[in-house]
Amino acid sequence: MTNSVVHTRVRKVAAESITDANDTLATEDPLEIRLVHGPSHNRRQQNISVTMRTPGEDMELAAGFLFTEGIIANHADIQEIIVSEDDNGSVATVHLKPAIVAQLANSQRNFTATAACGVCGKTDLQAIHTSVSVSKSGLRLTTTQLFELPAILRKEQSLFESTGGLHAAALFNEAGDLLFLREDIGRHNAVDKLIGAAMQQQLLPLQQYGLLLSGRAGFELIQKAAMAGIPVIAAIGAPSSMAVKKAEAWNITLLGFLKDQRFNIYSGAERIDVK
Amino acid sequence: MTNSVVHTRVRKVAAESITDANDTLATEDPLEIRLVHGPSHNRRQQNISVTMRTPGEDMELAAGFLFTEGIIANHADIQEIIVSEDDNGSVATVHLKPAIVAQLANSQRNFTATAACGVCGKTDLQAIHTSVSVSKSGLRLTTTQLFELPAILRKEQSLFESTGGLHAAALFNEAGDLLFLREDIGRHNAVDKLIGAAMQQQLLPLQQYGLLLSGRAGFELIQKAAMAGIPVIAAIGAPSSMAVKKAEAWNITLLGFLKDQRFNIYSGAERIDVK
Repeated sequence: MTNSVVHTRVRKVAAESITDANDTLATEDPLEIRLVHGPSHNRRQQNISVTMRTPGEDMELAAGFLFTEGIIANHADIQEIIVSEDDNGSVATVHLKPAIVAQLANSQRNFTATAACGVCGKTDLQAIHTSVSVSKSGLRLTTTQLFELPAILRKEQSLFESTGGLHAAALFNEAGDLLFLREDIGRHNAVDKLIGAAMQQQLLPLQQYGLLLSGRAGFELIQKAAMAGIPVIAAIGAPSSMAVKKAEAWNITLLGFLKDQRFNIYSGAERIDVK
Repeated sequence: MTNSVVHTRVRKVAAESITDANDTLATEDPLEIRLVHGPSHNRRQQNISVTMRTPGEDMELAAGFLFTEGIIANHADIQEIIVSEDDNGSVATVHLKPAIVAQLANSQRNFTATAACGVCGKTDLQAIHTSVSVSKSGLRLTTTQLFELPAILRKEQSLFESTGGLHAAALFNEAGDLLFLREDIGRHNAVDKLIGAAMQQQLLPLQQYGLLLSGRAGFELIQKAAMAGIPVIAAIGAPSSMAVKKAEAWNITLLGFLKDQRFNIYSGAERIDVK
């Protein structure tokens, strides 16, 4: 079993010295996600995806991925998840209940789309647009609560401190408390792990929660948050043009550059109270 | 035609003030890469990939992507590249010369693999391992040259300054000069653009060049560099465990945390001279 960090020897070069030292790396390792589905008399196994992820919470990652890709609708669709190791790496096999029909048309669409780390064609965007439902009402947050989130995240983000190489995604509530935090070398995996964890606790849709991102906010993360019904996304880094466009279209409040007692509101300012 | 940045209105919230202002976002927009290939009497068109990229250098991106994915071996394989806009977004159609056989088995492997921004299963890694050839000899660099690279990069990286949301990849030579720099919202796209540009200038294999990365170095970037024969990779950010493992296996010198007159050597220290 691999760990989320790997220790290595490194040669540290500085202007005035060269020293050999120990260093810690964020683990990047493949996880294959397989699906077993269909009626009892006709079970099928399919390879769905291989993702380079940081080991840990592989069951949450597999469940969250299947949900945010639209292949399953609910944690209750899952009979069991078995994580195993074979010669080629780690495998998470997700067995659906016999009565559940996997929405593989969604997956097919998304897989073509996500090849090469990209995400979508317009058709996909439109299809997703119709399937997301972020509540118009609901969550409100104050500027003071938001200003405090980066410090809370940093405190909780233990792995990042050691490797400098992991992204974090965290769920916070209306009181400004962090409920879950997940880390991964891939931003999208961190969000899938987080949503998978929330699913397991039957918290979906996450209409009363905000998503905190340790880095930049691209389209793919907004899409995943939208699938889970999250109305507020706060990123420590910059949003992309497509992230802003989709946040507006999907009625999501999108904040960027949240640090040093500042942030920018890119959409959905009505959910933020100044106090 | 879309631009590499998008201007937007933003509400800036700080502890002591709220102001409405103009802001600049890195553009994230889909590019579909299509391949037209086969003998003259039997030309076929195939959709290869959709990637979320920052517009600009789309021809280089398409060419570089096809090369680093192993679908084409050479820029001379390409007859022409046509970039067009349709209702769904931008399309780069790469027409191969009739005599060229596209290595779509490679692509098939990689596309399954890269779904969800991941990259590989072990089989793929091994397959790639046999196809890369980074020269044992060749490029040597001094610590002084390397210390100077981040400042040169920052000076050249004009887009990053305005958006805070773009990754850069640059090629440098034995004299420590930057030759090309490409930026994109996706690290892998920046590297594909860079390698595509070098291909156009018939510089491949890049055995006398180093690759400078503005951020972290994950497996996927090491793989792309290896495909192009690049022997030295210097990242401003952290490398992943798989990046280090593959750099060692492929005889690539991998430097991380290059900043403030310091860096760490993770592999291939013999190419670095202290002076």
